Amino acid sequence: MASQGKKLINDPNAVVTEFIEGLVETYPGLQYLDGFPEVKVVLRADYASAMLDKVAVISGGGSGHEPAHAGFVGEGMLSAAICGEVFTSPQVDAILSGIRAVTGPMGCLLVVTNYTGDRLNFGLAAEQARSEGYKVETVIVGDDCALPPLRGTAGRRGLAGTILVNKIAGAAAATGLSLDEVAAEAKRASEMVGTMGVALSVCTLPGQVTSDRLGPGKMELGLGIHGEPGAAVADLQPVEVVVSHVLQEILSPDTNYVPITPGNRVVLLINGLGATPAMELMIAAGKAVPQLQLEHGLAVDRVYTGSFMTSLDMAGFSISIMKADEAILQYLDAATKAPHWPVGVNGNRPPAKIPVPLPLSHSAKSYESLSRPQQLSEQGCLLEVAIEAAVIAIIDLRDNLNEWDGTVGDGDCGSTMCRGATAILEDMKKYYPLNNAAETVGEIGSSIRRVMGGTSGIIYTIFCKAACAHLKANTQSVVTSKQWAEALEVSIAAVSKYGGASAGFRTLLDALIPASAVLQERLNAGDDPCTAFLLSSEAAVAGAESTRHMQAQAGRSTYISSDILATVPDPGAMAAASWYRAAAMAIKNKYQSN
Amino acid sequence: MASQGKKLINDPNAVVTEFIEGLVETYPGLQYLDGFPEVKVVLRADYASAMLDKVAVISGGGSGHEPAHAGFVGEGMLSAAICGEVFTSPQVDAILSGIRAVTGPMGCLLVVTNYTGDRLNFGLAAEQARSEGYKVETVIVGDDCALPPLRGTAGRRGLAGTILVNKIAGAAAATGLSLDEVAAEAKRASEMVGTMGVALSVCTLPGQVTSDRLGPGKMELGLGIHGEPGAAVADLQPVEVVVSHVLQEILSPDTNYVPITPGNRVVLLINGLGATPAMELMIAAGKAVPQLQLEHGLAVDRVYTGSFMTSLDMAGFSISIMKADEAILQYLDAATKAPHWPVGVNGNRPPAKIPVPLPLSHSAKSYESLSRPQQLSEQGCLLEVAIEAAVIAIIDLRDNLNEWDGTVGDGDCGSTMCRGATAILEDMKKYYPLNNAAETVGEIGSSIRRVMGGTSGIIYTIFCKAACAHLKANTQSVVTSKQWAEALEVSIAAVSKYGGASAGFRTLLDALIPASAVLQERLNAGDDPCTAFLLSSEAAVAGAESTRHMQAQAGRSTYISSDILATVPDPGAMAAASWYRAAAMAIKNKYQSN
Repeated sequence: MASQGKKLINDPNAVVTEFIEGLVETYPGLQYLDGFPEVKVVLRADYASAMLDKVAVISGGGSGHEPAHAGFVGEGMLSAAICGEVFTSPQVDAILSGIRAVTGPMGCLLVVTNYTGDRLNFGLAAEQARSEGYKVETVIVGDDCALPPLRGTAGRRGLAGTILVNKIAGAAAATGLSLDEVAAEAKRASEMVGTMGVALSVCTLPGQVTSDRLGPGKMELGLGIHGEPGAAVADLQPVEVVVSHVLQEILSPDTNYVPITPGNRVVLLINGLGATPAMELMIAAGKAVPQLQLEHGLAVDRVYTGSFMTSLDMAGFSISIMKADEAILQYLDAATKAPHWPVGVNGNRPPAKIPVPLPLSHSAKSYESLSRPQQLSEQGCLLEVAIEAAVIAIIDLRDNLNEWDGTVGDGDCGSTMCRGATAILEDMKKYYPLNNAAETVGEIGSSIRRVMGGTSGIIYTIFCKAACAHLKANTQSVVTSKQWAEALEVSIAAVSKYGGASAGFRTLLDALIPASAVLQERLNAGDDPCTAFLLSSEAAVAGAESTRHMQAQAGRSTYISSDILATVPDPGAMAAASWYRAAAMAIKNKYQSN
Repeated sequence: MASQGKKLINDPNAVVTEFIEGLVETYPGLQYLDGFPEVKVVLRADYASAMLDKVAVISGGGSGHEPAHAGFVGEGMLSAAICGEVFTSPQVDAILSGIRAVTGPMGCLLVVTNYTGDRLNFGLAAEQARSEGYKVETVIVGDDCALPPLRGTAGRRGLAGTILVNKIAGAAAATGLSLDEVAAEAKRASEMVGTMGVALSVCTLPGQVTSDRLGPGKMELGLGIHGEPGAAVADLQPVEVVVSHVLQEILSPDTNYVPITPGNRVVLLINGLGATPAMELMIAAGKAVPQLQLEHGLAVDRVYTGSFMTSLDMAGFSISIMKADEAILQYLDAATKAPHWPVGVNGNRPPAKIPVPLPLSHSAKSYESLSRPQQLSEQGCLLEVAIEAAVIAIIDLRDNLNEWDGTVGDGDCGSTMCRGATAILEDMKKYYPLNNAAETVGEIGSSIRRVMGGTSGIIYTIFCKAACAHLKANTQSVVTSKQWAEALEVSIAAVSKYGGASAGFRTLLDALIPASAVLQERLNAGDDPCTAFLLSSEAAVAGAESTRHMQAQAGRSTYISSDILATVPDPGAMAAASWYRAAAMAIKNKYQSN
């Protein structure tokens, strides 16, 4: 159903002047003539110095093609852009004002798109300016390759190839060439470029109803940039097929529109029509380059991908191909201050882009290289005992965790935690280097990461990796209690930072933060490590239980009402308290049994 | 009705890798890691030299936000961008590969958007990289100002403000600062920026159905960039009103999200969401600047307008405001090779942009200053006689012209031509400077332009102005026959060039071209001017009559069948032959009567 086109504009009749106001607010190097609403001319803010010794280059036409042409005003490209109303050629007086404003003794070149209105209005302005004593030349660009050669003259519309012609003309002028020379370069460029467009939607004029001309699943081939119907309507195809068709049409020997033959070098321009995301334009570019190389035998010297000459809010793109030689490449590469000329394209491209090989890990190691030590150190023994107790506690708590999580989450907390616990138990027996505490903690993280998935998996992996990195950097072979406590603190900080939770958010941190605090406090107070760990684990359990009275502030539980939340503790906090408590108890038992 | 979203893509599951392939084809300075499809990392092609003595800056996240972040990779901005699948955080291994690839002894900074997935995956990658010995710091950006402060942590999403943070971090790193210093600059920047979005449409994931969540005439305010619903739905308003609302929300003292108060200096970023034309973005920029200045008392130091961080094909924009100081402006202005960082924005803006005054005509003259000479020269007499005869011939032919034009066009040729002829007759009596042939011909053009309109009006104006310019430049007070003949030739060339027609196109040129040819031929053969003119005018009439047998190749008649065309001559050609013939006859009679 046709409906009023949605646009973020004010008065549909003021879109062009308001566009120009925003443009000059954005770019300090651009200015405009004080002639709104009739005269809509954007010019270089430094026009006065430029016109002394350089040929001025002026382009323009109807609006609705932004950033063309006003966004291409700047040193090295256009001296001025003359903007008409949307899809309407500018009037002679506006063009004349632009010519007068930027034309010095070297004269000016008008680059005009091949539409009757533009030809006549720019033509009359040129003649009028000449009769006022200005040197003026005109080059007309008609790069459209969509339609077969017509009997008439209106066949080849001026499309996005004009952007390349303007760049070449502007760069030629910047080198100080004479008007005749600049005009000759522009004319030569205009004869080397062909363009064809593809659209998925019809553009909507400001304040107008959106056309439903193009149905679902259809595209238009060979369209103009003024909303006129394309040469053909076809079923939407993969973009690879669309690109192939467009390239064939442009390079067709039947029409012979562009003098490009196999073995030539070319420049490629993929131009978005207004509503086409960069992703789609780049995908088209990525397909066009190898097709030009492999199917048409052409070397692609430059690729320009972006939205340069649009058709209001049309979805689709046009492809332009220009035959390239050293002179053209130099002009295209030449520096310009025109804000919408693409940067980063200049310079020779490699014939093929070989991806950079994946870097190796600094600590490249295979699981085969790891192995459980033949003989465990005292620390290794304690570590094994603690880990075993911790994972068994989780396995035992599985159903409770699932039940609590079923109340406040998706009910899989116990299953997920149990999967990690089981993997740790198995991997420890196989290859954990238990005499190296730092590496062992790191391997626990690896086991978790391998099997657990989800937010809790990644959070526990971060927890272990942060501890591992800290222990590695700060400990020798035997880790002191104080160092363990520091590692716990660092791990908690990492989880808090990356997970975004703090104390009181109803997460596992509500078990671990009090545990860490008590551990440091007791060790500082001189308690023996075993006692300090035990007291710390009691704080963990108390902290986990206290989550019943907390509002959830992270994760899925934030959407659950406080009445329901109060019926259960946070399963993540309970799981953390549980493995921590079990480890502490196991250490105590081990000491007592020794 | 919901329908399959139209996109110019290939396999919906390969859009990200194909985007990257197109991106590196376009920009020689970009490369990617050889790890598709799991590892999608874009990096500087010169990464090896850069990592030696500079902190690496890495950003990334789910894809669908192109050009973010891959388009911002380059010297002075990002060292690498890690791309996830569409709207999905990249996996830890991909991030780790990117860190390993570009991080040297100075370390690397990860700039992460505030989404749980990104925080956790980048966080784990950071911890893993640290455990491998890399120096890694992380800064998390949450610049969303759309939602009231939440109890939870997920409230402030990372939006387009991230682009500014990345630029500042990259520029800081390029100056050789240490990792801690670069991280501090990035963190400071992240605390100074606020963003809010507005959408007219919902984005469509590749291969998915387009949502019809947002009806006609509605917009969403405070949206995210992953297709999630906005904070509110409202009726579409003029963009001025929308901008005002967004600015108020960002700068609200209630939420106090950004530390910006009246009198501060700010940077403005208007960010298109994927399907928003440059015209609309610039209109929004043009409204936001004065509002910030006048309603919020803020000095706007820089304006960045474009599509930087999109949401697939969403129509709409976000506005970001960052508090500016000298350090931030220096970082934002610093040169970068990142291809999608906007150019031409750097440097101080004038507080207000005063438009450039309209230039005066070089030949500024008012009609009052012109006057018919008291005493006509011999040439002036002849000119008056010829002009009078010519216009009277047109007035007499009016009905015939309308009739012929009614058959092949819109039937107003006679009326239009007659309007011009009448004006010439009146103006000549009032003020044509008849003793100056060049100026008189120019004034005929001015009379025509003032009253005639349409294609024929502008073509005749071009005809007269071209003759005027030629006569001015090449003749003295008395114009010789040869010079008149040359002027006719020049005028015909101008009409042909700007109108796009040639001989045989069934236009006025089919009368004038043979006339010009015979005139030159007879003068060269030594005929007296009067005879040559007469013979020439016979050629004009014969040429006009011959148009009956011509296919139309320009103008509206191209759509008429040849059977119908053959019944009448081209009215434009007949009119031209008629005034030309009448002028020649009048000159002959004048000579005979003398």
